[in-house]
Amino acid sequence: MRATTIHAARDIRLSTDVPDPRIEKPTDAIVRVTTACICGSDLWPYRGENDIVAGSTIGHECIGFVEEVGTEVRDVKAGDFVVVPFDHCDNTCAHCAAGMHSACVDLSMTSSGQGEYARVGQADGSLVKVPDVGPGGPDAALVPHLMALSDVMPTGWHAAVAAGVREGGTTVVVGDGAVGLCGVLAAAAMGSEKVVLMSRHEPRQEIGRAFGATHVVAERGKEAAAAVKEITGGVGADAVLECVGTDQAMGTAFAVARPGAMVGFVGVPHGVELPVRRMFQKNVGLRGGMAPVRAYLPDLLARTLAGEIEPGKVFDLTLPLDQVADGYRAMDERRAVKVLLDVAR
Amino acid sequence: MRATTIHAARDIRLSTDVPDPRIEKPTDAIVRVTTACICGSDLWPYRGENDIVAGSTIGHECIGFVEEVGTEVRDVKAGDFVVVPFDHCDNTCAHCAAGMHSACVDLSMTSSGQGEYARVGQADGSLVKVPDVGPGGPDAALVPHLMALSDVMPTGWHAAVAAGVREGGTTVVVGDGAVGLCGVLAAAAMGSEKVVLMSRHEPRQEIGRAFGATHVVAERGKEAAAAVKEITGGVGADAVLECVGTDQAMGTAFAVARPGAMVGFVGVPHGVELPVRRMFQKNVGLRGGMAPVRAYLPDLLARTLAGEIEPGKVFDLTLPLDQVADGYRAMDERRAVKVLLDVAR
Repeated sequence: MRATTIHAARDIRLSTDVPDPRIEKPTDAIVRVTTACICGSDLWPYRGENDIVAGSTIGHECIGFVEEVGTEVRDVKAGDFVVVPFDHCDNTCAHCAAGMHSACVDLSMTSSGQGEYARVGQADGSLVKVPDVGPGGPDAALVPHLMALSDVMPTGWHAAVAAGVREGGTTVVVGDGAVGLCGVLAAAAMGSEKVVLMSRHEPRQEIGRAFGATHVVAERGKEAAAAVKEITGGVGADAVLECVGTDQAMGTAFAVARPGAMVGFVGVPHGVELPVRRMFQKNVGLRGGMAPVRAYLPDLLARTLAGEIEPGKVFDLTLPLDQVADGYRAMDERRAVKVLLDVAR
Repeated sequence: MRATTIHAARDIRLSTDVPDPRIEKPTDAIVRVTTACICGSDLWPYRGENDIVAGSTIGHECIGFVEEVGTEVRDVKAGDFVVVPFDHCDNTCAHCAAGMHSACVDLSMTSSGQGEYARVGQADGSLVKVPDVGPGGPDAALVPHLMALSDVMPTGWHAAVAAGVREGGTTVVVGDGAVGLCGVLAAAAMGSEKVVLMSRHEPRQEIGRAFGATHVVAERGKEAAAAVKEITGGVGADAVLECVGTDQAMGTAFAVARPGAMVGFVGVPHGVELPVRRMFQKNVGLRGGMAPVRAYLPDLLARTLAGEIEPGKVFDLTLPLDQVADGYRAMDERRAVKVLLDVAR
């Protein structure tokens, strides 16, 4: 099959000879990918900041049609159009039962999401069918929104859940990448009265406002903290979403949090040293990690189909799969917020 | 007045010429201390691990009679018997209103608690009157329990609140000092189904069981984590109370937490490096800090007066004030869990 592979830092290729994934366990399914996208976390190996196994497939976000299922799969069948959570789970173990699907005892991940086919473990537990989709696929206008449900929107949602966003409260989002923007959307959907996006990039500010940001703070460092303090009546934010994963972003998150607040973090930490003394002195907590996508997916799908949320607005560049390398470049250079890949085309 | 002073590491004295504290602000009160005690955190300077200002008073936990109030104090008056939260607060600012009294904009601390008199800032906000106490003081049997409400019991309670202890859940308490034991009592009072105390000291295990511990784990390190995993059906604890403040204790806390759990920490961190990657991978959060004593005090006093909790059981040695140095030695050498000081005697 054709699938995206990484060979070295900044060396992304569309390979045409990647072996088709096959059913390996009776609980697996194979999904024929119609739409994929590039994740901010794909940029870590792209930039050489994670180890690279030369020639390995890359990409973990996709949607498409079930092509084949293992003998023990009951709830999805060939022909179903599904959202594929990037983290596969059985949806029955003790961790899943507690809503922590990303710690499932049967956890696996999509590994060839930017390709024509992807294997999904624990298909019954993982996949969520989109109703009323014919062989031609979903309505074109709906595709980006469905695509966003595979990772980026549930990850922003998880940041908001972890931060304890509540109705009537004040939320600050650190990070204007696609995850941060989805965090804005999540906080607004949860009824946060004020949603402050920290961003200095006009196009991202615009998406943030469309997602429900009531304030945009373009300052950095101490000035940013002062601006948030003013917006929050001198108190600081009730909930802070750290959606980057760097030490600087984490520092900003703690600086804008009010005493007793919680920082929700979903950016894979790179070089972060947590200020434990400061956390103690301010009683500011930290919680987060890999999003339990399946926990939120049914609700988020319902909101999407009802038109209540339009998370696909984070995609500002669409490319055919064979231009995937251009997509990585565009995100790396911050020319694009998030790139959608049309695999079928 | 007579008051305890510290002069160097392991040099604790009862000084007889400490100036009486005076009303400095119209919102202050002076309390004539009848009972005081020694806090685990007093051992940090005692052991030379915190800076020492030679000759300064020490001690922040006390109860006693209001001796004098400032001109703006309305809710307490001379002769009232009160519990003195170690952290004084106005109980009206935005942080107090959010239950985070330990971040009060008018925060101050008791500084001569192990002495005959103590000044209390924001007396109306801070002090909680014990009803129906005559000039002779409370019933002798009640004294230790009231004494525990000044710091140690609310601090254990705060650990449980921060860790999100819930009815029917599983709680692990790391640390068998007086705070950890009060954490056990708090978790049990909150309805935790299993309460696991990590302790290898028989007398402390006994108090822990009296406070509601359903299990005691004497192992350390990996064996401890394995023991907790077995007790929790292979899953790990829903809530973990870290009541020590060392890196080792924090490591144990994260090791026994289930994915999605929260660690509540109340031990002032000394040399703690937080495992941010591990926290991310397991989705285990951390929250805590200095306890907002006043937030919990009315409820804890009511429970104490009703006989529902007996937090004073953490005191296993009572000394007159002039033997305070012996009290520090006993706690430093772990011969005593917590020392009560009879100041009136």
